[in-house]
Amino acid sequence: MVQFTVFKGSKEGKIVQSTTTKDVKDHDVLIKVSHSGVCGTDEHKRSYDMVIGHEGAGVVEEIGSAVTRFKKGDSVGWGYIHSTCNKCKQCITGHETLCPDRALYGLANLDQGSFASHGIWNEDYIYRIPDSIPREFAAPLMCGGATVFNALQAFGTRPSDRVGVIGVGGLGHLAIQFAAKMGCEVVVFSSTDNKREEAMGLGATEFIATKGVKELQTRPIDRLLVTASFQPDWSQYIPILAPRASIYPLSVDSSDLIFPYMAIIRKELTIQGSLVAARQVHREMLEFAARHQIRPIIEQFPMTVEGINEAMERLGSGKMRYRGVLIAQ
Amino acid sequence: MVQFTVFKGSKEGKIVQSTTTKDVKDHDVLIKVSHSGVCGTDEHKRSYDMVIGHEGAGVVEEIGSAVTRFKKGDSVGWGYIHSTCNKCKQCITGHETLCPDRALYGLANLDQGSFASHGIWNEDYIYRIPDSIPREFAAPLMCGGATVFNALQAFGTRPSDRVGVIGVGGLGHLAIQFAAKMGCEVVVFSSTDNKREEAMGLGATEFIATKGVKELQTRPIDRLLVTASFQPDWSQYIPILAPRASIYPLSVDSSDLIFPYMAIIRKELTIQGSLVAARQVHREMLEFAARHQIRPIIEQFPMTVEGINEAMERLGSGKMRYRGVLIAQ
Repeated sequence: MVQFTVFKGSKEGKIVQSTTTKDVKDHDVLIKVSHSGVCGTDEHKRSYDMVIGHEGAGVVEEIGSAVTRFKKGDSVGWGYIHSTCNKCKQCITGHETLCPDRALYGLANLDQGSFASHGIWNEDYIYRIPDSIPREFAAPLMCGGATVFNALQAFGTRPSDRVGVIGVGGLGHLAIQFAAKMGCEVVVFSSTDNKREEAMGLGATEFIATKGVKELQTRPIDRLLVTASFQPDWSQYIPILAPRASIYPLSVDSSDLIFPYMAIIRKELTIQGSLVAARQVHREMLEFAARHQIRPIIEQFPMTVEGINEAMERLGSGKMRYRGVLIAQ
Repeated sequence: MVQFTVFKGSKEGKIVQSTTTKDVKDHDVLIKVSHSGVCGTDEHKRSYDMVIGHEGAGVVEEIGSAVTRFKKGDSVGWGYIHSTCNKCKQCITGHETLCPDRALYGLANLDQGSFASHGIWNEDYIYRIPDSIPREFAAPLMCGGATVFNALQAFGTRPSDRVGVIGVGGLGHLAIQFAAKMGCEVVVFSSTDNKREEAMGLGATEFIATKGVKELQTRPIDRLLVTASFQPDWSQYIPILAPRASIYPLSVDSSDLIFPYMAIIRKELTIQGSLVAARQVHREMLEFAARHQIRPIIEQFPMTVEGINEAMERLGSGKMRYRGVLIAQ
């Protein structure tokens, strides 16, 4: 039995430090957490009685008796998907994130997460972090990076495509880098000019401030990744979408998608749901990020109750540039 | 110069008989119309000062000096797309229905249509009707058939897919036949049990009456063709959509698509716009229909002012089973 520190949400919305006691089973890996990303979905969990965090990075401290892929000392990470059934159509075709029996952050394993000193996870659902990626940069790739990379990689983006990215934040600033390194033209849409220089520095080929603009002026966009924290005014974007363009709504939104109906048909648009990456896509993401030196821009906070609170406030107020990372003390 | 009879809409919504005079140019074919389908979009045009009809079938009566594909006496048809630029990305990749310079029914060539004694059309945008398809059955394939076949054929439907069809009408009753002959399981959704027997006879494997039903009971649907004249209650269908299911909204609707946002992401759903078929897909549709004896169920009306009015009233009241066809007098 291993005992370790965890940070939980609570009904009152306060972060609480606690302890979890757990076995390292045959297929499990005990990870000493060194870093965790702080994602918007973590902030949503602060009022739940569960351990928070799903962008974990750390070092293998102990392995179960049946573990074959990892050894003590390995640099590893994990993300949103904890386990899947390995039997259903989705699992056996490389789409295990859609397994009906998937164990997901927020729904399963509520007694542990990446806001913790340690985690115990099945070896099949953790990832080797390439040596060239320091763990503080690897952590935000485990969900944020995997989410935007999946939207680009799993639905056939081609290097000749013009990729639009709405929003420069935790997801958007990674999407710009991935799409640019895939060889695409990257057109960034942000409400104001504030982030223009940073976006261009990350690889954008165009930057368009959208606030109050009647007609967006740019050549047709083939793929549009929506990473802003709210749905855009879709009618503003329809004129600049190419025929057969794809739209990927990536942000969390509890309301409805409200989209001009006939535009979908007239241009044969695709509105494509995209979740986090399946494991093979996630592995490709890490290799691609390593090879192209893709790194999140991070702000660091101590992994303490105070540090977590501070990070969440900064994230909630929209000031984080661009991903918060907690550092084990 | 050729003079021929046409039937137009008018500001008052009345059908008016008139005459068009037109040249047969080098690449044109003069078609003596024998039949025309009556489509919902025709009914929308009855208050416009334009010739109505876009599901034409007839016999070649004369060819222009440069025409190579057709000769006098050939059985031919035409549909929604009159011409495209042949130069743009969409045109040179087989997606010419999305050409920015496309000439479409309702927007171009308002002086002629398939509610007429004759039509003069560019040979590149008309279709040879297979000998085994009588023209009264071929006419509704020119738009209705092409629309549902495109949704199935152009986006990779596989014979092992479970295809849902919402609505048994002009489009739906053809979608059932095409999907069944493609080898798919076909699950038909209709508000009441009225059309159950006919749907099963057309090749449906399941029929589900949806009115007042809280939870639809069927195995997961991979492709959902929406052919009803109104948007369904999407939340009723989400539980029975397979992970990675595709939805094809095919009906005309001037309002917004309002769809539960997170469902799109959680199941990685695809909402796929699909217009009428590009020419090669249209040709494949006609060959497929001929090979599998796919025929619309039709009600026939004389091609006269009275006949057109009667057909449109029947269509507007939702009583047409399932496609009206006008017959040249």
